[in-house]
Amino acid sequence: MSEYQKRYDAFVRLIEDYLTACMDRLVRESSPYAQPLTEAMRYSLLSGGKRLRPVLLLASHAAFKEEVTPALPFAAGVEMIHCYSLIHDDLPCMDDDALRRGQPTNHMVYGEAMALLAGDALLNLAFEEMSASGHEHALKAIAAVAGRSGSRGMIAGQTADIALSHQRPEKDKARYIHQHKTADLISAAVQAGLILAGAPEARLKAGERYARHLGVAFQIVDDLLDLRGDVKLLGKDTHKDQALGKITWPALVGEAQSQKDAATEIALAKQAAEEVEGPAGFLSELALNTLNRVQ
Amino acid sequence: MSEYQKRYDAFVRLIEDYLTACMDRLVRESSPYAQPLTEAMRYSLLSGGKRLRPVLLLASHAAFKEEVTPALPFAAGVEMIHCYSLIHDDLPCMDDDALRRGQPTNHMVYGEAMALLAGDALLNLAFEEMSASGHEHALKAIAAVAGRSGSRGMIAGQTADIALSHQRPEKDKARYIHQHKTADLISAAVQAGLILAGAPEARLKAGERYARHLGVAFQIVDDLLDLRGDVKLLGKDTHKDQALGKITWPALVGEAQSQKDAATEIALAKQAAEEVEGPAGFLSELALNTLNRVQ
Repeated sequence: MSEYQKRYDAFVRLIEDYLTACMDRLVRESSPYAQPLTEAMRYSLLSGGKRLRPVLLLASHAAFKEEVTPALPFAAGVEMIHCYSLIHDDLPCMDDDALRRGQPTNHMVYGEAMALLAGDALLNLAFEEMSASGHEHALKAIAAVAGRSGSRGMIAGQTADIALSHQRPEKDKARYIHQHKTADLISAAVQAGLILAGAPEARLKAGERYARHLGVAFQIVDDLLDLRGDVKLLGKDTHKDQALGKITWPALVGEAQSQKDAATEIALAKQAAEEVEGPAGFLSELALNTLNRVQ
Repeated sequence: MSEYQKRYDAFVRLIEDYLTACMDRLVRESSPYAQPLTEAMRYSLLSGGKRLRPVLLLASHAAFKEEVTPALPFAAGVEMIHCYSLIHDDLPCMDDDALRRGQPTNHMVYGEAMALLAGDALLNLAFEEMSASGHEHALKAIAAVAGRSGSRGMIAGQTADIALSHQRPEKDKARYIHQHKTADLISAAVQAGLILAGAPEARLKAGERYARHLGVAFQIVDDLLDLRGDVKLLGKDTHKDQALGKITWPALVGEAQSQKDAATEIALAKQAAEEVEGPAGFLSELALNTLNRVQ
């Protein structure tokens, strides 16, 4: 196993342990009356997944401060935000998905009402964790996350993704959706990691470019995987984009060009990563690995 | 007009102005692609209402520091949280309400998907506003709000409200629902106001008791109004509780006893208010006025 993969897995273990402890504490502190809620939250939050965003947060932090424990409440926070957005995205009134990470989606198991509340509760829990951390840079990190996960960021992207469905596909629209729906929360993770580690302003800016290019590449790759229909690799229903009339990059420029565009974005991400962490670091490796999924 | 009412209205004006400016700024900074989202958010956030929670926040603050401007981002925050919870509560998979504050509910106007996202975005915006405030006590106030609005607080109450529907009504269940669904966010408002004003610990504890009793009384009064079916006074559909099999106080102890119980809670709230602000203050008046709605 590569050094990169060992490090990735070590980050994931830290995150899984933290999330598990967090949910255990919540269940312990909750009345039996709230049990349907905590069960639904646990089901989606502890269902595995790549944990990309919290890994990015810890890795960005580690580029300046190796001891990442103080950043864990924030790593958990961005993963909770990602998780809530998936639960709500999967609801019948949104993308109406039955499968996620190879398992039935939250509302298929717990019903729509509980899935809705579990999503709300995970978004809220993210801010509970971050604000209760007592970290000296907590407020700045929370502001960086909140600004990118809300109506100027990720939710604006989800809105465009829905509002522009079945409309004439244009590159400008696709870029807006990718930028906000996917890249903004990736950027939130990188910014929070750097802020918590006390990284200088110039590095924050390079981190912003890194996250933007990585996020856009990541979404193009996701669109390609949906198109190719690999249910097993994606762990969710495929060929959904077309059925939902979603604007995707492959639909705009074709499959071959999409792969080239993803490679270009990754090259730019790698460049920015070097400004953050120096040459041949973890963030560069992570960018290259994103591309490997479709090669 | 009483001094109390003048003061209440002055608080409301401050809040309305702040919320309007906040939404104007959001619209200005948003792409046309996000317009369906910002419109749906504005529709519910700027639709009037009593603004009880932000008024409580400003009034609790004013009991220790008269200059309330620095507390406005937090007053807006608790109102945004209240507003998101109403949008989500009204959705077809929850209470399926068509009317709120005398107007069609959010999803009746903008569709379920946009109502869902508008709710998510308002919850997120609450934390954006509070964390961007830069207030010296921001982190502690955010933690106080987040802890009471999430899965240990308001959302636990919403969960019980749904999960216990059509179950045998018991006082213990009704108390749990009232406590969490209603009193916790009221408590969030009072605590944040006191924390931001730098109130001493003993006052925070009295504030907690005040909010708990006020919140429970408020919910009993709301149940009574639903039962009496005054659509005009409530601005929403009535007789819904019975149809939805909701556990209410009047269903448990009868109408007359409910009114007595509300009066007892208000007397206890008034006692606690005096420990916060001294005799004959605004918080006491507010408690008494809550009771007047059903007398």
